[in-house]
Amino acid sequence: MEPEQRPGRRRQRDMTIEDIARVAGVSGPTVSRVLNGKSGVSAATRQRVESVLREYGYRRQEGRDHLAVLELVFHALESLWALDIICGVERVARERGLAVVLTEMQGGFTPGRAWTERMLERRPTGVVAVFSELTVQQQSQLATRGIPLVVLDPTGEPLHQTPSVGATNWSGGVAATRHLLDLGHRRIAMVCGPQEWPCCRARLDGYRAALDAAKVEIDPELTPVDVLYVEGGLRAGERLLRLPDPPTAIFTTNDLQALGVYEAARRAGVRIPQDLSVVGFDDLSFTQWSGPPMTTVRQPLVEMGATAAELVVALARGERITHTRVELATTLVVRESTAPPSRGRAI
Amino acid sequence: MEPEQRPGRRRQRDMTIEDIARVAGVSGPTVSRVLNGKSGVSAATRQRVESVLREYGYRRQEGRDHLAVLELVFHALESLWALDIICGVERVARERGLAVVLTEMQGGFTPGRAWTERMLERRPTGVVAVFSELTVQQQSQLATRGIPLVVLDPTGEPLHQTPSVGATNWSGGVAATRHLLDLGHRRIAMVCGPQEWPCCRARLDGYRAALDAAKVEIDPELTPVDVLYVEGGLRAGERLLRLPDPPTAIFTTNDLQALGVYEAARRAGVRIPQDLSVVGFDDLSFTQWSGPPMTTVRQPLVEMGATAAELVVALARGERITHTRVELATTLVVRESTAPPSRGRAI
Repeated sequence: MEPEQRPGRRRQRDMTIEDIARVAGVSGPTVSRVLNGKSGVSAATRQRVESVLREYGYRRQEGRDHLAVLELVFHALESLWALDIICGVERVARERGLAVVLTEMQGGFTPGRAWTERMLERRPTGVVAVFSELTVQQQSQLATRGIPLVVLDPTGEPLHQTPSVGATNWSGGVAATRHLLDLGHRRIAMVCGPQEWPCCRARLDGYRAALDAAKVEIDPELTPVDVLYVEGGLRAGERLLRLPDPPTAIFTTNDLQALGVYEAARRAGVRIPQDLSVVGFDDLSFTQWSGPPMTTVRQPLVEMGATAAELVVALARGERITHTRVELATTLVVRESTAPPSRGRAI
Repeated sequence: MEPEQRPGRRRQRDMTIEDIARVAGVSGPTVSRVLNGKSGVSAATRQRVESVLREYGYRRQEGRDHLAVLELVFHALESLWALDIICGVERVARERGLAVVLTEMQGGFTPGRAWTERMLERRPTGVVAVFSELTVQQQSQLATRGIPLVVLDPTGEPLHQTPSVGATNWSGGVAATRHLLDLGHRRIAMVCGPQEWPCCRARLDGYRAALDAAKVEIDPELTPVDVLYVEGGLRAGERLLRLPDPPTAIFTTNDLQALGVYEAARRAGVRIPQDLSVVGFDDLSFTQWSGPPMTTVRQPLVEMGATAAELVVALARGERITHTRVELATTLVVRESTAPPSRGRAI
């Protein structure tokens, strides 16, 4: 990979392990041990070597290790969402002769120290982090080893520098909301996800844009925020259905939330779609068998996984990447959970 | 790991790489290359070395490579079933400091040559194969390298020698059928899976045993066989509901088939559970949100994955395993898809 060429920055691509060792005041083998995540180096020495590597913008130039692996890091493995992404990454890895090393963080967003050390030992071709982030230090550890990183559905700052892959979340939010408007709904709620996640925020912005374009006033009561699980949709759905003037349609940030809204409606004796229209987001396979089959916005999750893997492989080969953010198209899938609003609600 | 000690068999635990090289008429490094799946050895030589390794029951004695990985091989990654198993394996691997290398075979049951070579190169701590099988040659390649193998839900011969993990499939079949009998059903169908798979056969045998115990005659028309996907349940369900004397209850071999039966009932205007009771098998998370929430037999999939990983780690440590087949308990989860049969069917 090409080192970054900022104007006025020294050309450091020729720094060798011996150069780093000299500057850090340690032996060459010690630098190698740090680079390869091996034990037997004191914390202080390790830190000094890391900071010299970082400062001089060291990039490993040697040939790859024979163990060709692609690291796949997940926030959590909780839904079919994760499985589709794994399938996409797995497909590309297989075509490239790479083994996929899968790590789950049990709901954490940043992998721990133990992961970093073991990952560096494995000297992967690249890292794909799904709905998770690496610390600045971890990112620089990857950079100094020449290991590229691609994020799928980044959780942090939308304008980050890390190459990333996602879906057209904003357009998906517009499409779902416009579908409900076209059916004649005007009192349309949205169950939102945590707003610090760009994918959640973009879907909400799409919802708002569609309402604005249709000149429908946005009622802040109709956009509760909750977790991206069934419980979140259930809680928010129960609150919405208890409003004095409840919505006739609810768009949710993902399919699991939509299932929660289904359950809230069932408990309240509200029929879908006769009394309430529901639109999800993701198109996980169970949505076509839910009761009723769910109208939802399809994210091409398998393709997103494949694209992230291809991007990381291209970076590992030193190819110049012109697009650091790839968004794959979403599609509205209309099934049986949406219908025109009924005149009078019969609850 | 202890080499097998059959009576009358020569004690071969002390065979070194040099001994193997001498017998095969090649150099020591060549034997090492074959053992580690490296290239640069002709097919003929490789074959000769493999057969000497096999014949002399060679077991690798050296210390482990520093890259500690656990291989997880899947028939296919198609449903939440797979995700739960991955979570279980991942949990144990993490506790043991092992990285999980995930391989999918896109519906195949035996991994190919390319997989074998790369896997041997990775020198894993062990292999967990899910709903899949290794060829005799692959099994012997693992054995000569001292790499243990554990199968989860084996697809082949029920009395195979490979250590394996599953659920109490037979008892689960009994529990589901008895539940339907207790509700008053007598005309109970079962959508079966391919009978060469022990887990499918055991569930059918449980169904039969429960009917026999209740002295209900088994009608062969009521046990169609189809694939373990929604399409299979849909096809079999439509056939069953068109019978002159249709069943009042259908038990299926897995939850996906049960969703297919839901769809068949919906198309035929048959209400669940008023006109037809349905029981699935697996308890995948969507079953609680299906319409109606599904009565099903729970398999502890996460625990099954964890148990398989623990077993393979124990074998890698050379622990003596007394139980080569572990079956974890299934539980009947009663939800809203089962009810007493109605007097007259209103279709």
